[in-house]
Amino acid sequence: MTWPTPYVAVIFTTQRSSDLDGYAEMSARMDELARLQPGFLGVDSVSTEDRGITVSYWVDEAASLAWRAVAEHQIAQQIGRERWYDAYDLRVATVTRGHHFDRRQ
Amino acid sequence: MTWPTPYVAVIFTTQRSSDLDGYAEMSARMDELARLQPGFLGVDSVSTEDRGITVSYWVDEAASLAWRAVAEHQIAQQIGRERWYDAYDLRVATVTRGHHFDRRQ
Repeated sequence: MTWPTPYVAVIFTTQRSSDLDGYAEMSARMDELARLQPGFLGVDSVSTEDRGITVSYWVDEAASLAWRAVAEHQIAQQIGRERWYDAYDLRVATVTRGHHFDRRQ
Repeated sequence: MTWPTPYVAVIFTTQRSSDLDGYAEMSARMDELARLQPGFLGVDSVSTEDRGITVSYWVDEAASLAWRAVAEHQIAQQIGRERWYDAYDLRVATVTRGHHFDRRQ
């Protein structure tokens, strides 16, 4: 999926702990909520048992910051730090170029 | 891992085909080569059977472009389009903020 540049990518790379109680449900709920946020463009997410990369795309940084501040999302972030994640990196980036390839097109 | 901002993130999201002949070897070789490139900072990569996200980090856009132009990498890109990937998105972004969390620290 491509959108007009510039837009914002939030790159979230995680190392999960062994305590994933409640994780799957919260993750699905956050995906659902993020999609309702103003300025949400899309999300890519791939994970294995213990590592994950989620990249969410936003029209601008204000939209990404608004999502970060959503109350239910703040609770998820808190539980993430306390329980689900051993470590993570969160990076905010401005996408300046994008190229889409689809062999079927 | 964090580095002084700004730096460049190249976000590569893929849908793989069913023909992965030679893919694993090439992927390992590209990882090895990328690490030798001037301006390489690091890489995060997570994949399942049919989807992947690889984010590589570079000191600046010139460094990321130099990697794109490496002859052996160009061959890998060509085979990727012909064989391994049904679709992909490549995004070049400037990281302006980063936050690292590690529960063990």
